[in-house]
Amino acid sequence: MSNLKTLIEQMTLEEKAGLCSGDNFWRTKVVERLGIPAINLSDGPHGLRAQGEEQDHLGVNDSKPATCFPTAAGLASSWSVERLEQLGAALGDEAQTEGLHVVLGPGANIKRSPLCGRNFEYFSEDPMLSSHLAAAHIRGTQSRGVGSSLKHFAANNQEHRRMSVDARIDERTLREIYLASFEHAVKEARPWTVMCAYNRLNGEYCSEHSRLLTDILRDEWGFEGFVVSDWGAVNERVPGLEAGMELEMPASGGERDAQIVAAVKEGRLEEAVLDRAVERLLRITFRAHDARKDSAEFDAEAHHQLARHIARDSMVLLQNDGTLPLSNEHRVAVIGEFAERPRYQGGGSSHVNATRVETLLEALRSRDASLDYTKGFEIDRDAPDQQLEQDAATAASHADVAVLCLGLPERHESEGYDRTHLNLPANQLALIEAVARVQPNTVVVLANGSPIAMPWVGQVSAILEGYLGGQAVGAALADLLYGEVSPSGKLAETFPQRLEDTPAHLNFPGEGDVVRYGEGIFVGYRHYDTLGTEPLFPFGHGLSYSRFDYANLTLSASDFDGQGSLTISCDITNSGEREASEIVQLYLSDQTQTVPVATQALRGFDRVALAPGETARVELRLTRRDFCWYDAQRGDWRLPTGTFEVRIGASSRDIRLSQTLDVQGDDVALPVIDRNTLLGDLQRREDATRVLRQHLADIADELPMLNDLMAREGGDDLMNAMGHYLPLRALVSFSGFTEARLENLLKDLKALA
Amino acid sequence: MSNLKTLIEQMTLEEKAGLCSGDNFWRTKVVERLGIPAINLSDGPHGLRAQGEEQDHLGVNDSKPATCFPTAAGLASSWSVERLEQLGAALGDEAQTEGLHVVLGPGANIKRSPLCGRNFEYFSEDPMLSSHLAAAHIRGTQSRGVGSSLKHFAANNQEHRRMSVDARIDERTLREIYLASFEHAVKEARPWTVMCAYNRLNGEYCSEHSRLLTDILRDEWGFEGFVVSDWGAVNERVPGLEAGMELEMPASGGERDAQIVAAVKEGRLEEAVLDRAVERLLRITFRAHDARKDSAEFDAEAHHQLARHIARDSMVLLQNDGTLPLSNEHRVAVIGEFAERPRYQGGGSSHVNATRVETLLEALRSRDASLDYTKGFEIDRDAPDQQLEQDAATAASHADVAVLCLGLPERHESEGYDRTHLNLPANQLALIEAVARVQPNTVVVLANGSPIAMPWVGQVSAILEGYLGGQAVGAALADLLYGEVSPSGKLAETFPQRLEDTPAHLNFPGEGDVVRYGEGIFVGYRHYDTLGTEPLFPFGHGLSYSRFDYANLTLSASDFDGQGSLTISCDITNSGEREASEIVQLYLSDQTQTVPVATQALRGFDRVALAPGETARVELRLTRRDFCWYDAQRGDWRLPTGTFEVRIGASSRDIRLSQTLDVQGDDVALPVIDRNTLLGDLQRREDATRVLRQHLADIADELPMLNDLMAREGGDDLMNAMGHYLPLRALVSFSGFTEARLENLLKDLKALA
Repeated sequence: MSNLKTLIEQMTLEEKAGLCSGDNFWRTKVVERLGIPAINLSDGPHGLRAQGEEQDHLGVNDSKPATCFPTAAGLASSWSVERLEQLGAALGDEAQTEGLHVVLGPGANIKRSPLCGRNFEYFSEDPMLSSHLAAAHIRGTQSRGVGSSLKHFAANNQEHRRMSVDARIDERTLREIYLASFEHAVKEARPWTVMCAYNRLNGEYCSEHSRLLTDILRDEWGFEGFVVSDWGAVNERVPGLEAGMELEMPASGGERDAQIVAAVKEGRLEEAVLDRAVERLLRITFRAHDARKDSAEFDAEAHHQLARHIARDSMVLLQNDGTLPLSNEHRVAVIGEFAERPRYQGGGSSHVNATRVETLLEALRSRDASLDYTKGFEIDRDAPDQQLEQDAATAASHADVAVLCLGLPERHESEGYDRTHLNLPANQLALIEAVARVQPNTVVVLANGSPIAMPWVGQVSAILEGYLGGQAVGAALADLLYGEVSPSGKLAETFPQRLEDTPAHLNFPGEGDVVRYGEGIFVGYRHYDTLGTEPLFPFGHGLSYSRFDYANLTLSASDFDGQGSLTISCDITNSGEREASEIVQLYLSDQTQTVPVATQALRGFDRVALAPGETARVELRLTRRDFCWYDAQRGDWRLPTGTFEVRIGASSRDIRLSQTLDVQGDDVALPVIDRNTLLGDLQRREDATRVLRQHLADIADELPMLNDLMAREGGDDLMNAMGHYLPLRALVSFSGFTEARLENLLKDLKALA
Repeated sequence: MSNLKTLIEQMTLEEKAGLCSGDNFWRTKVVERLGIPAINLSDGPHGLRAQGEEQDHLGVNDSKPATCFPTAAGLASSWSVERLEQLGAALGDEAQTEGLHVVLGPGANIKRSPLCGRNFEYFSEDPMLSSHLAAAHIRGTQSRGVGSSLKHFAANNQEHRRMSVDARIDERTLREIYLASFEHAVKEARPWTVMCAYNRLNGEYCSEHSRLLTDILRDEWGFEGFVVSDWGAVNERVPGLEAGMELEMPASGGERDAQIVAAVKEGRLEEAVLDRAVERLLRITFRAHDARKDSAEFDAEAHHQLARHIARDSMVLLQNDGTLPLSNEHRVAVIGEFAERPRYQGGGSSHVNATRVETLLEALRSRDASLDYTKGFEIDRDAPDQQLEQDAATAASHADVAVLCLGLPERHESEGYDRTHLNLPANQLALIEAVARVQPNTVVVLANGSPIAMPWVGQVSAILEGYLGGQAVGAALADLLYGEVSPSGKLAETFPQRLEDTPAHLNFPGEGDVVRYGEGIFVGYRHYDTLGTEPLFPFGHGLSYSRFDYANLTLSASDFDGQGSLTISCDITNSGEREASEIVQLYLSDQTQTVPVATQALRGFDRVALAPGETARVELRLTRRDFCWYDAQRGDWRLPTGTFEVRIGASSRDIRLSQTLDVQGDDVALPVIDRNTLLGDLQRREDATRVLRQHLADIADELPMLNDLMAREGGDDLMNAMGHYLPLRALVSFSGFTEARLENLLKDLKALA
C-alpha cells in the first residue's frame, strides 16, 4: 500500500483523473512514465468477447473465437457449485490466453419478471441460489489470476428504459432479495471489481449511489476492489467518484476526466477522494499484471467438452411420460429449424464468437445417419407456414417419436429490450398442433433464456428445457435424449402458467421512468407459494431417468438461538436403475410469522451423484442469518422467536421430509420512543409496561381502553384494540392527561433504552 | 364575511384558540360575550348517535333513540342516488330534532381489502360509485340545514394501527382511486366539513398534511367548510392548524389551545393563520344556527318504513336456482340465531340506539305463525355444537325449504380492528353442512359488513346478501324472500374466492407502521379483471326475480376529443313477469393503453324501475375526465389518444352491449428536458426530432443506435432499443460528442417548450 501511495504522489492531477475512465472501449489508460500499465476488460459471463485490435466504438464487431458455455439461466439449473467453478476457471484460462485482466460477469440480478430480456444472463429468482453460484463463478475465474466483475449492481431487473428507470424498492425487499443476491458473492468470493448498474435505485443513479457503492458494498460487505460503471452508465462524474464509482467505461473522450480535474481545482472535490479511487484502481491493476501468465494457452477441445458436460448437467427434464430416453430402436423424426441452427447463447454484449458449434442434428446423425429431418418452421419468421407444418406432420407420422426443436428466436429475447408476452411464435404453436395430432410420442426440446407459456403442455409426451446451451448444445441434448446420462438439472426459476400470474405483472415494466416493486419480497416461488398459485413447473423442479428416496432427516439440535450453526442431514438413495444426480433442496418455513414472510425460502442445497442403489448422506448447514428478516426501521437483521419448519425437498413443491425447530430469537426491542409510540408496542416489554402503569394509574379508570394495560377484566374487543393502537400523545385527547405529564412519561420510557 | 372579520377582531387570542378544539366530546366552545354559539356534532352515517347530556369521555354510553338505516356497505348495493338522498334527508331531520348541527359522515374510503374492520361503513371498492353515493348522502343531509362531515380524509383503509400507520401510496394511485372517492363528493355536494383521517399518508399525518388539506382539498377542489380531526387524530396541533385542520376533537383539556396561544405569542405561528381557521369555523357555525329548526320533529314510523324500503333496495340476491321467491305454500324452517338476534349495524362509533328492531323471525311469523324455528348455532361462540346442528337438520328435513340466517358476529368485524380471514365461524360452517345434507332447498341469508368466503356456495340453492340491513332488516328480508318486491341490489365490491386473491393480500395490513399500496391502481375489480382472476361474485353482480334485455346502444358521437360531453344511451326492457329494478353499468375499457391501466373502469350507472314488458331509455354522460389518467410527473390529468370500448353491463362480468370510440387525446407533451431525457421520448415529437437530427448528424454514422432517429435502414433490434432508451448524456460515452455540445443541444431542446 505504501508503495501505491508513493506512486500516487508522483502522479499529476490529470494522470489521476485519466485513470478513472477508459482509454478506449475495452482498456484503461497507461501512465508510461510511471510504469502504470493498462488493464484489458472483456464481456463474458459464459464466454469471452475479446475484440483484440479490431475494437470499435460500441464493441459490437466480431470478437476472437472463444468457448461459448451455456448462459447463466442454464448454468443455474445445474445447482452445481463445482461446475460453476470449472466454468469460471476455464474463462480465466481463456482470458489469460487473450491477455485480458478482467472478465465482466457474472450477473447476479434477480429474475423479477420472466419478461426481462436479459434474464438469460442471470441465475435465479432466488437470492441464495444466485449468490452462491455467482460466488463459485468468481472463485473459478479469479483462481486463474483474472478478475471478475460482478454485475449489475443493483436492481437492474429490466431492459425497458434501463438507462433511466428508477427502481423503487423498499429497504427490506432490497436487502432480503435484490442485494442478498450479491451479498454472499461479494463477501465470500471477493471479486476484484463490481459493475454498477445503469438504472436508478430509489431516486439515485446506481453509478452515483454512495449508500450502495460505499456504505453497503464496502463498509458493510468489505469489498476491496474497484467499481466500474456499466458501459455508459455514468450520469454526473464527480458525484459518481465521490460515491465510490472508480472507473468510468468506456472512454468519454477525456470529457469527464476534465470534469474531475476542474472539480479538484475549483475545490468542489477533495483530491483525497480521487487519490482513494486511484489507489483502488492501481491495486487491482498491479494485482492483475502480477498474475499475468504470458505464455498461457487454452485447450479448445477440452473446453468444448467441458461446455458439453456443463450443458448436460444444466438441462431440465420438465415432463416425461416414459417416452424418454430414446433408444436406438426408435425411428426418430427431428423437426424444427433450431435442430440445424441452434440458439445456444443470448443476444447483446455477451455474444460470443464460438470456437465451434455442435448442432443437435449433427449429434443425432452421428448416431443414425438415416434420421429424418424437416424444418417445420422458419426461425426468422413468426407466421405459420402450412406447407412446412404438413411436411413435419408427415415426417412425424412415419416415425416412432417426433423430436420438436422449438424455442425463442433471438429477436424475441435479447439484452436491450424486454418481452411483452410469454408465448412461442405462432408458427411454432401451429407446428406443435400439427405434429402432436399425428404423433403421440412427441418430445419438445426447448431453446430459450427465460420461461415460456405452454398451453400445449398436455399434448406432448416429454419436454426437455435446454435453455441456451452453449456451443456443445447438440451433443449435450443428444446425450440426454438417448440416456447416455440422466437429466439432472432443476429449475432455478418458476415457470408460470400465465403472464398474469407472475409476481411483478401489475408493476412491470413501470410507468415512465418509475418502476415500483409493489410485490415486495414476494418474488419468484415466494409469490406463487404465498398466494397458492399453481405454477406450470415449480421452482426446483426437474425429472430424472432414475428415482431418489429421501430418509432419516436429522437436526443437530431441536432448538436454535442464533449462536453457531445447525446441521441438517438426510439420506438420499438412488432407488432407480441408472446412475444419476439429485439436487436436494432445503427450505425454511416460518410458522410463527411475527412479520409478513413468504411461505418458505430456500436456505440450502446440494447436488449428489449416485450409482443405482447407492445412498449418500447430505449435510447442510444453517446459521443465524438463514432465519432472519431485515428490520428496515432498525437497519439490521433480526432473528424472530418462533417455530420454523425445516423442509427437505426434491423441488419447492415436492417436500419429502420435514421437522420443526424452535427458534429463540432476539429480545423484543424497545420501540422508538416518541409521542406516537403505541401503547401496545410498549406492552410487549415488561419494563415499559411497569412505567406505563405508574404514569397512567390515576387516569386508567376513565379509560376502558386501558383495561389490558392495567391487567383488568372487561372492555370489549373494540376498546382493547383501541388501547393497543393508541399513540401516547392521544392520551391527552381522551383523558385529563397533560402535555407536561406526557413529557415525563416519555423521559422515563427513554431511560429504559 | 366582513361581519365575521369584525367579530374575529374582537376576539382574544385565547378565545380564538379555544374555538379550534372541542368543549367536550361532542360540542365546540361558546364565546358568550360575543354571541358565538357552540355546534353539536354526532356520529352517524346511517343513524344518529346523539348522546345528549349523558355524554362521557369516550362517547361510548348509550345514545338517544334514532332510526338505524342499513350501513354503507348495504346502501351502496342499491346504487341509488335517490335512496341515499332520502336517507341523508332523514338523518338531517332527526339531527334537527335532536339539536345537532353536524352529522359525522358519510365515509368515502375505498375498500382496499375485505379484511378492513370498518368496511361496513364505506361504500365501495370503486371511487366513482363511492363518491357519487357520498355526494347524494351529503346533499340529502345538508338539504335539511344540517352539515355533513365527509370522512376519513384520506387513505384510512385499515383499522390495524390506524392511528400511527403510514399509507405509502404513489401519486397516480392516490389521485385515481383514493382521492377520487372523495373528489366528486366535495366538488359537487360541498360538505360543510371534512374529517381528516387518523393515519399518515406518505410520511405525514393526515391531520397536518397541508398538501392534502389545503393544496388539494381547498385550492384544487374548492372546499370552503372546515376540517375536523377524527377524534384523537391530532399529532402536533400547531402544524395541523397551519396545514388546514381547523377543529380538533374532542377536547384536549385546553392543552393544545394553549400551544396555539404560545405559538402565536412566540412568533412561531402567524396570527393570520389562526384568524383564517376561526373564520372558517364561524362561517359554518353561523350557517348551522341560521338553519336550525327549533321545533323540528321526525316521524319515527315513517323513518322505519324508509329504512325498510332502503334495505329492500340494497340487499343482493347472489345466487338462486329458482328456490326463491318462497311462496305461502312452502313449509319453511328458519334456522340460525341471527333470525331472532339480527346483526343489523356495525360495531364502533357508528353504533345506533335504534327506535325499534324488526327481526326476520317476527316478520316471517307475522305471515305464518306455525313456522318452525331453531337456533342452529350461537352467535356468541364459534365452536360447533352437534346438538344444535342436529336439531337444525331435523327441522330442515321436515320442511320444504330451509332458510339459514348466517353472518359475522360483531366481534369478528368492527371498527377498531381488522379481520384476519374471510371465513364464517366454524359453528356456522358445520351448520351449513348439516342442513344442506338433508335439505336440497336451502336458502342462506347473510348478515355481514364485508365479503366472506363461501366454500359451501355449491351446496345451497340461494344466497341473499343482507349486509347490515338496519332496524327494518327483518321486514325487508321477508319482503324479498317472499317476492313482495324483487331483489335489485348489486354488489359494490367484489366477493373473492380466497383471501389470497384479494388485491392487497401481500401488502395488508403492512409491516410495523408502514403499509405499502403495492397493488397501485389495481384495486377491486380492476385487480381481478386485469389478472383474469375469477371472483366468487363479481363487482356489479346481483340477481332479480325478473329478466332484463339490453338493446340499441347509441353513442352521441363516434369520436371524442375531450371537449363537452358524450351521451351513451341504450334501451332496457323488463322482459320478465314481475315489476323490478335494474342497475345498468357503464364501463370504459382503454384498448390502446398508452400507460398501464385496468382492463375496465366504471364510468356511469343508473337504476331503473320497470313494470313487466316496460322499456326505458337510459342515458349516461361521459366527459373528459372519464377517459383520463393522472400523470404524476406533470401533476395533471391527461387524455390519452386511442380506442376505447364503451361497455354497458348488468355487472362487471356481464357486459351486454359494447361499441368502440376513437379518442383524440392531448398532444404529446415535450418530455422534461435534461441530460437524462431519452432519445426515444424526444422522437415522439417532430420538432424535437428535427433538433436532434441537426445536432447529431455528424456523429450518427458511428452510432448504429441512431438509425431510427436518422430514418435510416438497418440496425438490429438491440441497437434500435438502445437508441430509444439512450439518455442524451450517454452520447458523450458512446461517441465523440462533448459536454459542450450536449449543453447546446439541451438549450435548443428547451427552446421548444
